[in-house]
Amino acid sequence: MIGRHAIRNGAVIPSEEATVPVTSRAVQYGFSTYESIRVVNAHPVHLGDHLERLARSCEGIALVHPFTEEQIAGWVADLIACDGIDEATIRIQLYGGEEPLLFILASKILSYPSSYYSDGVGATTYSGERLIPSCKTGNLLLNYMALADANQQGCFEALLVNRHGHILEGTRSNFFAFREGVLHTAPDDEVLLGITREQVIRACGVLGISVAYEAVQVEDLFSGCYDELFISATSMAAMPLKSVDSMSFIGSYERTLAIKTLVRSWELV
Amino acid sequence: MIGRHAIRNGAVIPSEEATVPVTSRAVQYGFSTYESIRVVNAHPVHLGDHLERLARSCEGIALVHPFTEEQIAGWVADLIACDGIDEATIRIQLYGGEEPLLFILASKILSYPSSYYSDGVGATTYSGERLIPSCKTGNLLLNYMALADANQQGCFEALLVNRHGHILEGTRSNFFAFREGVLHTAPDDEVLLGITREQVIRACGVLGISVAYEAVQVEDLFSGCYDELFISATSMAAMPLKSVDSMSFIGSYERTLAIKTLVRSWELV
Repeated sequence: MIGRHAIRNGAVIPSEEATVPVTSRAVQYGFSTYESIRVVNAHPVHLGDHLERLARSCEGIALVHPFTEEQIAGWVADLIACDGIDEATIRIQLYGGEEPLLFILASKILSYPSSYYSDGVGATTYSGERLIPSCKTGNLLLNYMALADANQQGCFEALLVNRHGHILEGTRSNFFAFREGVLHTAPDDEVLLGITREQVIRACGVLGISVAYEAVQVEDLFSGCYDELFISATSMAAMPLKSVDSMSFIGSYERTLAIKTLVRSWELV
Repeated sequence: MIGRHAIRNGAVIPSEEATVPVTSRAVQYGFSTYESIRVVNAHPVHLGDHLERLARSCEGIALVHPFTEEQIAGWVADLIACDGIDEATIRIQLYGGEEPLLFILASKILSYPSSYYSDGVGATTYSGERLIPSCKTGNLLLNYMALADANQQGCFEALLVNRHGHILEGTRSNFFAFREGVLHTAPDDEVLLGITREQVIRACGVLGISVAYEAVQVEDLFSGCYDELFISATSMAAMPLKSVDSMSFIGSYERTLAIKTLVRSWELV
C-alpha cells in the first residue's frame, strides 16, 4: 500500500517515522534538495534524469553526502517492491549537514481532472526570484507564498516575474508561450532545468516546432504577442493556461495537447 | 538540565521527540518563523520584543496560527522551570500550514571568547538578498551558504551585499559602521529589525552617537570612508570586525565596546 513505508538512508521504515529533528541546522535552514518522480506501472519515470539533477542540485549548494545514484535507485526500487506500488508520486528528500539524511517517500500519484487539459487552468503573476534557480532546494518560501496567493485568487499556478519583467517559471512548473508559431521559454541558466521541460523540447523536435530560449516579457504577454501558453511539470506533462491575471488565452490548445500526448507516451520508454 | 525537554504546542515533551514529519509541506517549503532568545539568570531577555517580532514575521508571510503571545511566554517559562534553566539559548520554531506546530527548544547559551571582543572577528562579503528581510523565516539557504563560505575562509560572519552594492546585514547579525563619528546602518525596511539592533541604537542615544539610517556602500567601505565596524545579534551584543575580506579595520574598538557594555547591562532590566 502506497505510503505505508518510507526509506531513510537505505533502511525501510514505517512512514510515520520519516521525521527530522527540529534542532537540526539543515532542517532549520532548508539546507536540502529534493526530487519528485512519477511512478507508472511500477516504473519510476526518467529516474536516471532525476538522480542526475539531484546530484547537480547538491553540487550547486555544496551539499555533500555519501549516497550514490545506484544506491538511491536501488532504494526507490525497494520502496516500490515493498509497498507493491503501481502508480505513485515518489519524493526523494535529502538533508545535508554533518549527518546527511535521505528519505524516499511515496504518496498517491498527483493527477488532474481531464477538464484541466481541455479547458486550461488559470495563472497569476508574482514578483520574485528564486535563489540558485537551477537547483531544487528547500528554499521554497517564495514558491509557497506565490502559490498560496494564486490559489486565493482561484488560480492553479503563479508565474514568477523577475526584476527585468521576465516570466521565468511557475512555482512548480516551467513556462512556455507560442509567438508566431515559435515556442518561447526562458534560457537554461535562469530556470529550473525541468526533466519534463526537456521532454517538451524533444516533442517540439518531433512536431516541427521551433524553440526560442528567450524569456517572455510580461508586457509583451499582456499586449497580445503570444497566443498559446502552457506550463510543464512531472505531474502535469504540458498543461494549457486559459488565463494569466485578467488576460484570457482560451483556445483549443492543439499544440500544447499534442506535446502533452508525446511527453506522456515516452514515460514508459 | 538544559535540552532535556522541549515544548510542542504547549506540551512538555522529551527533546528527542521534537521532530517534524518530512511529509509536511510547511517543513518542505520552509513555511516557518523562529526566534532565538537569551536566557540569563533564568530570565528570557527582551521576551516581549521577540514575541512581537515573531508575530510580525508570521503576519509578513501570512502564517496563521492559534498561539497567543501570553501562551508562548507561559510555555517559555514552563521550559525554564521544568529543566531548571539558568543560562541558555531558547529557540521558538513555528511551522505553519493546516496543523501549525510550535516548538520551544533550549540549548547551551551561545557565547564567545573574550578575545572576539578585544581583537575583533573577520567578515567576508557575499552577494545576495534575503526574501522579505523584515521576517525571520525558514527561508535561510542564502544565509547558510554565505556563512559556510565565510567559515571556509576562516571568518566569523558573512556580510550580505545587495544588487546595489549595499551591505545590508550579516547572515545572523545586523551591521554597523562609523564614518566621521556617525554610526551607519541600513534602513529599517531593508534588514531584519534586530532586537539587539534596537538596543544598539538606544545605547547610541545614551553615548551621544548620531545614527544614520543609510546602508554602507561596499565601495566606500573599501576606499577607507569607515573606521570602526561591528555586528550585533542576541548572542553577540555588539562584536567588532577586525576585517572585511582583505581590508583590515583593527583598532581599539572603544565605541563598539562601550555600546556592547550598555546593551548587556540592559538584559536583566
